Amino acid sequence: MNIENSKHRYCVIMCGGIGSRFWPYSRTRLPKQFLDFLGIGRTLLQMSFDRLVPIIPAENILVVTSERYAGLVAEQLPEIPVENILLEPARRNTAPCVAWACWHIAARDPEASIIVAPSDHLITRDNLFQEAVLDGFDFVENNDALLTFGIEPTRPETGYGYIQIDEAVADNVRRVKTFTEKPDVELAKVFISTGEFFWNSGIFMWSAKSICDAFRLYSPDIAAEFDSVPASTFCDVESEKAYIAKVFPSCVSISIDYAVMEKATNVYVETVKFGWSDIGTWGALYDISPKNAESNVTHNINVLSYNSRGNIFAVRGESGKLVVVNGLEDYIIADADGVLLIWPRNQEQKIRQVVNDVKVKFGEKFE
Amino acid sequence: MNIENSKHRYCVIMCGGIGSRFWPYSRTRLPKQFLDFLGIGRTLLQMSFDRLVPIIPAENILVVTSERYAGLVAEQLPEIPVENILLEPARRNTAPCVAWACWHIAARDPEASIIVAPSDHLITRDNLFQEAVLDGFDFVENNDALLTFGIEPTRPETGYGYIQIDEAVADNVRRVKTFTEKPDVELAKVFISTGEFFWNSGIFMWSAKSICDAFRLYSPDIAAEFDSVPASTFCDVESEKAYIAKVFPSCVSISIDYAVMEKATNVYVETVKFGWSDIGTWGALYDISPKNAESNVTHNINVLSYNSRGNIFAVRGESGKLVVVNGLEDYIIADADGVLLIWPRNQEQKIRQVVNDVKVKFGEKFE
Repeated sequence: MNIENSKHRYCVIMCGGIGSRFWPYSRTRLPKQFLDFLGIGRTLLQMSFDRLVPIIPAENILVVTSERYAGLVAEQLPEIPVENILLEPARRNTAPCVAWACWHIAARDPEASIIVAPSDHLITRDNLFQEAVLDGFDFVENNDALLTFGIEPTRPETGYGYIQIDEAVADNVRRVKTFTEKPDVELAKVFISTGEFFWNSGIFMWSAKSICDAFRLYSPDIAAEFDSVPASTFCDVESEKAYIAKVFPSCVSISIDYAVMEKATNVYVETVKFGWSDIGTWGALYDISPKNAESNVTHNINVLSYNSRGNIFAVRGESGKLVVVNGLEDYIIADADGVLLIWPRNQEQKIRQVVNDVKVKFGEKFE
Repeated sequence: MNIENSKHRYCVIMCGGIGSRFWPYSRTRLPKQFLDFLGIGRTLLQMSFDRLVPIIPAENILVVTSERYAGLVAEQLPEIPVENILLEPARRNTAPCVAWACWHIAARDPEASIIVAPSDHLITRDNLFQEAVLDGFDFVENNDALLTFGIEPTRPETGYGYIQIDEAVADNVRRVKTFTEKPDVELAKVFISTGEFFWNSGIFMWSAKSICDAFRLYSPDIAAEFDSVPASTFCDVESEKAYIAKVFPSCVSISIDYAVMEKATNVYVETVKFGWSDIGTWGALYDISPKNAESNVTHNINVLSYNSRGNIFAVRGESGKLVVVNGLEDYIIADADGVLLIWPRNQEQKIRQVVNDVKVKFGEKFE
């Protein structure tokens, strides 16, 4: 990589989630993105960084997270300057998060182009990802475009949103016809059969100018919060912090999809296939994970199983803990930070309710 | 209690077991008798001591255990002199254990009468137990008798040995007709219907003289090991230790039942009903434990269960750990010292094999 080519290229890693679907393995005090989810020695956040740093200078990689995770980010990503960690004073979904990060970058480098990526997704083919990102930079640096990555679907997944493509405007880049909510399985099958629908990855690329202009046009309330002070406010750590503390909590809590992408007319999709999963559910983690002969997922855990199939084991905290099971089928066995969960995989949508039940019965100590 | 009456009365608590049936809750390094099995703040060993110390002076209470548990016994029973902890240099079942303890006591107090009791049983009605022990002391102090406690059976239990009674010789004391191995359930039902059969508790009483004489008659090999040095050998800590280190390992490994009780002619049974269980299996522990509305046994553990019945939870090590389960029926959920076991209660007899499988696969660290 020629670093000169990339000096105006930036990445924003969104890192504010609390990962409650993976309770008790993922916890409010140590969410999913900070965990070595695949048992490979790197956390999801670190993996997100690792796949970007070969093509974007580390000093151009920003992480947006909440104040409570500032220490975790600094610890896990010592390569980035600490001032690149933007600390949200409140959780406001992705639109205010993206707006702040992009105004921050634009103020310092008006020529910036940016990739915005979640911190907690899995991408298995880093080389293809990097090629796609480089193509994306070329596209957004030469077009007033809001570009999203559409993943070529491999199954009629009902857990993802879909993007319907329209005419091609470049190699692998299409206009977007529609964004579609999570379909039922029958509709998902139709989507796939048409060849026109791609999974919405939640990875975006644009120039700083294009995204700021799009906010001004489609979410003027949010834009106004960031336009009402001089750009220099975002160039000084202390003044930026003070200003954000004042205005950020008053931003509406809304996703970047709703706030901008579904309204804008200059939206494009780069169709890609780099082995992507949002790891949004235990089922998704099970699906993407290597399995042993009994179809159990054990990720570097000492497991001895008898008469047990289709389970996923997630243990954290006690080094080298042994788990012995008999007669369990399609279960989640998660053990971390003083909580053990033994739960059928096909009822994982009820785990959120459990977290609430636990809070009612035991207070917040197990969150 | 008049302490003068009890100065020749002794107790030997047998405390050398490794509790492997309760793996992983009970471990080689911290067996069953050293655990607060019922979640009440006292270990089984401490409970054994607690029910005896009102009728036997603490300085007359001895514990026989193996060298590796010396520290645990001293820590859990600070009330007894440390020289009352007899440390077996090898595991040799109960006969050599009882012989040593009784020779040790006889050497110091030829007028001694003794109760020998396991450290890991449950007795729920301490007052009735103490009355029975006092009656037993009266009997063995006035008769050349080997007395065992026979528990009035409450169900056709197949996990216990039975004692068939013969004619009465005193209130609640009978001659023994036969000792019987664990019966099948049909035979156990017949036993109960006759009213002649009592559970063999493994609790024994005798004078020091009677038991030593019985060893000389029925297990002369064992007796010879202890008779071949002057009694004074057992009155000096250092000389006793040196001698035991030499001869104890060469004793045959045999139970006191086989070595003496089933052969002797002066064997009697005191029939009692003081709420006894040997807590020999998870099933036995489940049966004796209080249960919640869903028939789960949770012993002071934070458990949140959904659609789950008949389970027994045993957690140790992480203070206040929360266990959340869904869809488990009749399971053992045991979590301690780096091992989690999730196992059907009706297959608990296979757990010993599991311990072996674990040893083969992971070495001794999880024993």
